[in-house]
Amino acid sequence: MPTKILPSADAAQAYPLLIKQIFASAGRFEPNNQIIYRGEQSFSYQQFRDRVQQLANAMTAAGVQAGDTVAVMDWDSHRYLECYFAIPMLGAVLHHVNIRLSPEQIAYTMNHAEDKVVLVHDDFVPLIEQIQNHLSTVEGYIRLSDGQPSVSQKVEFIGEYEALLAAESPVCAFPDFDENSIATTFYTTGTTGNPKGVFFSHRQLVLHTLNMMGMLGSYDGLPLLRSDSVYMPITPMFHVHAWGVPYVAVMLNVTQVYPGRYEPDKLVGLIRDYKVTISHCVPTILQMLLSCETGQKTRLDNWKVLIGGSALPMGLALAATEKGADIYSAYGMSETCPLLTITHLNKEIRALPIEEQLKYRTLTGVASNMVDLTITEPDGQLADHDGTAVGEITVQAPWLTQGYFKELQKQEELWEGGRLHTGDVACIHPDGFIEIKDRIKDVIKTGGEWVSSIELENLISQHPAVAAVAVVGVPDTEWGERPYAMVVPKTSEVDAAQIKQHLQQFVSSGQITKWSIPEHIDLVDDIPKTSVGKINKKAIREQLQA
Amino acid sequence: MPTKILPSADAAQAYPLLIKQIFASAGRFEPNNQIIYRGEQSFSYQQFRDRVQQLANAMTAAGVQAGDTVAVMDWDSHRYLECYFAIPMLGAVLHHVNIRLSPEQIAYTMNHAEDKVVLVHDDFVPLIEQIQNHLSTVEGYIRLSDGQPSVSQKVEFIGEYEALLAAESPVCAFPDFDENSIATTFYTTGTTGNPKGVFFSHRQLVLHTLNMMGMLGSYDGLPLLRSDSVYMPITPMFHVHAWGVPYVAVMLNVTQVYPGRYEPDKLVGLIRDYKVTISHCVPTILQMLLSCETGQKTRLDNWKVLIGGSALPMGLALAATEKGADIYSAYGMSETCPLLTITHLNKEIRALPIEEQLKYRTLTGVASNMVDLTITEPDGQLADHDGTAVGEITVQAPWLTQGYFKELQKQEELWEGGRLHTGDVACIHPDGFIEIKDRIKDVIKTGGEWVSSIELENLISQHPAVAAVAVVGVPDTEWGERPYAMVVPKTSEVDAAQIKQHLQQFVSSGQITKWSIPEHIDLVDDIPKTSVGKINKKAIREQLQA
Repeated sequence: MPTKILPSADAAQAYPLLIKQIFASAGRFEPNNQIIYRGEQSFSYQQFRDRVQQLANAMTAAGVQAGDTVAVMDWDSHRYLECYFAIPMLGAVLHHVNIRLSPEQIAYTMNHAEDKVVLVHDDFVPLIEQIQNHLSTVEGYIRLSDGQPSVSQKVEFIGEYEALLAAESPVCAFPDFDENSIATTFYTTGTTGNPKGVFFSHRQLVLHTLNMMGMLGSYDGLPLLRSDSVYMPITPMFHVHAWGVPYVAVMLNVTQVYPGRYEPDKLVGLIRDYKVTISHCVPTILQMLLSCETGQKTRLDNWKVLIGGSALPMGLALAATEKGADIYSAYGMSETCPLLTITHLNKEIRALPIEEQLKYRTLTGVASNMVDLTITEPDGQLADHDGTAVGEITVQAPWLTQGYFKELQKQEELWEGGRLHTGDVACIHPDGFIEIKDRIKDVIKTGGEWVSSIELENLISQHPAVAAVAVVGVPDTEWGERPYAMVVPKTSEVDAAQIKQHLQQFVSSGQITKWSIPEHIDLVDDIPKTSVGKINKKAIREQLQA
Repeated sequence: MPTKILPSADAAQAYPLLIKQIFASAGRFEPNNQIIYRGEQSFSYQQFRDRVQQLANAMTAAGVQAGDTVAVMDWDSHRYLECYFAIPMLGAVLHHVNIRLSPEQIAYTMNHAEDKVVLVHDDFVPLIEQIQNHLSTVEGYIRLSDGQPSVSQKVEFIGEYEALLAAESPVCAFPDFDENSIATTFYTTGTTGNPKGVFFSHRQLVLHTLNMMGMLGSYDGLPLLRSDSVYMPITPMFHVHAWGVPYVAVMLNVTQVYPGRYEPDKLVGLIRDYKVTISHCVPTILQMLLSCETGQKTRLDNWKVLIGGSALPMGLALAATEKGADIYSAYGMSETCPLLTITHLNKEIRALPIEEQLKYRTLTGVASNMVDLTITEPDGQLADHDGTAVGEITVQAPWLTQGYFKELQKQEELWEGGRLHTGDVACIHPDGFIEIKDRIKDVIKTGGEWVSSIELENLISQHPAVAAVAVVGVPDTEWGERPYAMVVPKTSEVDAAQIKQHLQQFVSSGQITKWSIPEHIDLVDDIPKTSVGKINKKAIREQLQA
C-alpha cells in the first residue's frame, strides 16, 4: 500500500513503547495508596518507586546486562511486582519460572531460556539444590526470604534481596531501546514434547496494559478495576503475567494486596481485611475459597472476580453469587499475553435478574478491543456467528507471542496462515458471546462435523448411574473419527445400551446429532488422569490403539 | 542497547496499529446505542458501520487512493465522524480544514496539504466558489447537505454525500499497511508566517485512543467517559480531532450527539434533551452556554465538561458549578494530538467541598499516562516541582507530531533536543498539578528570570482605575528584557506612578520580584487586538520598536 509516510524532524523522538512508561505513572495519581504483602508489610507507591530502582541497581551490580535473562521463583509478592518492572526496564528478560512443573521440566526451561541470574524464594531453595548441577547457564542466585532463618549451605547466594536493595541508590536512569525487545518469557506445557517458551516484547506488554485498563475500567458492563479498587491476584504471578493485571494496577495506582503462597483461609482473610474489590482466579481456586473454613463464614459482597483458565460451572457460579461475589469470565492463554475475550454485560443483560445474567457471565465473553477473533470450520471456511456452528478460534491482536523460542517448526504451526491458532473450538452467539466447546485435539471430527468431547461427557454424566466419564475420538475408515466413551459406573447395574438410550433424548431434542452417540462405550474402574488430575485423553487414545 | 530481539515465526502477524481496529469495536458492546445528528437524525452503531464502509467505497469510486489527501469542511456531524474512519482506513490522509481561517489561509492550507478531493458542507460552498480557482491540486468536490435546496452552479460536484453512499455496498475490506502511515493532517496558525501543517499516524491515533479511554474511564478522580455516557463534542471536529474523544467514544460504543453548527441555545437544548453527560469546550463556549437564553433556565446537573484551550477563570468555573456542571481541565495543542495533561482529583481533593476543589479543577491538571512532561528553566536546567519555579513545558509522548509538513527548519525548532517544545511556560506543584503561566514568546526574560506577562496583567488589572492592560517585554541592554505595560484607564485620574505603587504591595507580599515592576507604563485609549480579539503583543512590540 503506497500510503503517505512523512519524514520526521531529525531531532524528533519516535517514542518506543517501553515498560518504563507504565512505571512512570506509579504514584502520579494516588501517591498514598499502598502495596501490601500478606498483611505483613506495606509500601507506598513512592517506596515502590524507590525499591524498583534499587532492585535495578542491584541487578546491574550482580552482573545483569541488557539482553540477559533473569529467572524469578517466588510466590505472589511485592518483590515479584518489583521484578515485573526492574528487570525488563534494564533491557533484560524476565523469565517467569513455572514452579509447578517437575524439577526436570524446570531445569529444562531454565537451561532453554538461558537464565543467567535466579531470584529464588526460600521455599524453592531445596529445588535449586536438587537441580543446580544441571543448570548450565546460571551464574548466580539471589535469595528472597520472608524471614526464615535457615539458609542453604549448598547454594551460593550473591546475597539476600532486602540487603542488596538496601545497599543501592533509589535512582536509576532506565534507558530507551527498541520497543520490540523481549521483556518476558515463560513456558507452556502441552501434552507432548518439551515445554515451549513464549515471549513478549515491551511494545506488546504496554499495549496489553493500555487496552486492559480501558476494558476493565471504562465499560459500565464490566466495572472491574478503577483507581479506587483494591486488587489481589489469585492467579500466580508466574502464570501469564498474572493475566497482565499487575501492570494495569500500577498504572492506575490502586491499592494492591499480594498474598504470597496461596492458602485458602489466608486468601479469604485478606479479601475480608483489606476490602479487596477485584481478584482473578481459576474455578478450582474459587471453589477452594468458598469451601474453606474462613470462606464458609465470610460474605464476599464487594468482591468482583474474573474467572479464566477453564469454564466456570454454573453450580459454582451460583454458589459464589449467593455469597455476594460478582462473577465475570475471561479467556486467553500463555501464547496470548493473555487477554482475548472478556464478559461484557450490555444494558439489556444488566437489566436481567442476577440468576439469568449468570448464563452470560459464565460464557467466555466477547472479544476484547483490539482483538480480531474468528472461528474456522474444518474446511477452512469462517463459521457463522449463530451460536451453533463451531470452529477453531484463531486470533490477531497486538500482544500475541510471535513464536516459540528456538522451536522453528512449532511456531509456524502456531501461526499458520497469519493467524494464531488457539487450539480451542467454539461457537459464537449472535450477540458476540463466545462459547468454548473443546480443545481441537479432543474434538471428534466425524463426517465433516466437529463433535465436542466435553459436551458428550457432560451429557453422559447426567445419567444418574455414571460416576465419571471420558470421551475421545477413535479413527474410523468411513467417518474419519467416531466418538468413544469410557465410563466409571456408580453401580454395576448400568450398561452401554442404557447410556446410549440416555443420549437418545438429546438427539431427539436436537442438542446433538445421532452420529454423536458413541458406538463403543466401555465400563471401567478408573479413567487415566494427568499429574494435575485432568483426564488424560492422550493416554486413553494410546490405550485404544495398543 | 543490545537487548534481546527474537525472530518471529515467518507466518506471524506483527499487527500494525491501525484505525480500523478502533472501528472494529463499533457496536461490539452496545449495538443499540445511537449516533445522533442535531436531534434530527439517528443512526445505530450497525448503521454507522455500514455507512463508513459505503463512504469508503464512495471515496474509492471518486478516485481516492492510498496516499491521497482528502479534505473535509463540515460542522460537527455524523458525516464527519464517518470521515474520521473511512478516509484513513483506506490509507488516505484526512485533512481537517480549519474553516475559521481566512479564505486566503484556507486556500494556502489546501494547496500545501495537496488535497485531492474535498467534502464540503453547503454552508462552505460560497467559500469554495471564492477560492476554487486558486486550488491547484483539488480534482473534485463532494457536497454535504442538511437538505438545503440550493446548489452552487459554480462548483462542479462529484455528487451529494447521501446519494453517493446509497449507491455503494456496505462492505469494504480495509487493508493492512504500515502503522506509521499518516492518517490526519491539519494546520496551526502562529502569530507569524504561514499556517504550519501537523500530521498524525495511525499508530499515534490508536495509542492516543487507547490511552484516553483509560484516562477518562478508569480513574475515580476523573470519571468522564464510560460506556453508558452520552457524549457531545463542543470543540470543533476539525480542531485537533475534537481532542481525540470521538475515537474513544466509538470504541466504547457510547451514545453520541453531534450538534452541527454551534448555536448556544441549540447546544443547551441538546444537552437537556439527550441527557448529555460529557462535553468538552473552551471557556468562551462555556460562557456562551451559561448566558444564552436556554442556558439561563436550564440546569446542567449531570453534565461533566472538560475545559481546554485556555485557562478557565474561577468566576466562570463557579458559575458553571452553581448550575450543576462538573468541571475538569485538560491541556494540549495542535502539535500534541492533543492530550498532555488532565485534571485528576485524588482521594484527598475529592474529600474537599466543591468550592475548594475548583482550585484544582481549574489548574491544567497532571500529566497523563504515557506523557513525560518537564519544565526547563532559561538556563536549560530542569526546574523544581515546587509550585514556584517556572520553565518551558517540553514533552515526550507516543502521539506528538513528528514535524511540520514541508517546514524542515521549523520542525527542528519544535523538536530541539529530542523533546517537543510547547512554547508554554508553567510551574509544577508538588502534587503534580501543572499551572501554565504564559506563552514563552510573551514571557519577559529579565536578569536570568522569567516574569509572566499574564501575571503582571492580572495584578495591574486589579487596580480599580484600570480598564484594560497589556504587558510585553522590551529589549534592555543590561537585563536582557524589562517589562513594559500599556494601560487603558477607566478614568483620567490614574497615572503610571500610581500603578507602580499598586504593584509594590505584591512585591512586599513576595508574589512578584521588584524587577517585575514595569519601568515604562503608557496610558493609551486602546490596546492592539488580533482578529479574534486577543491582545496583539506582536503589534505592541513592533509599535515600541518603531
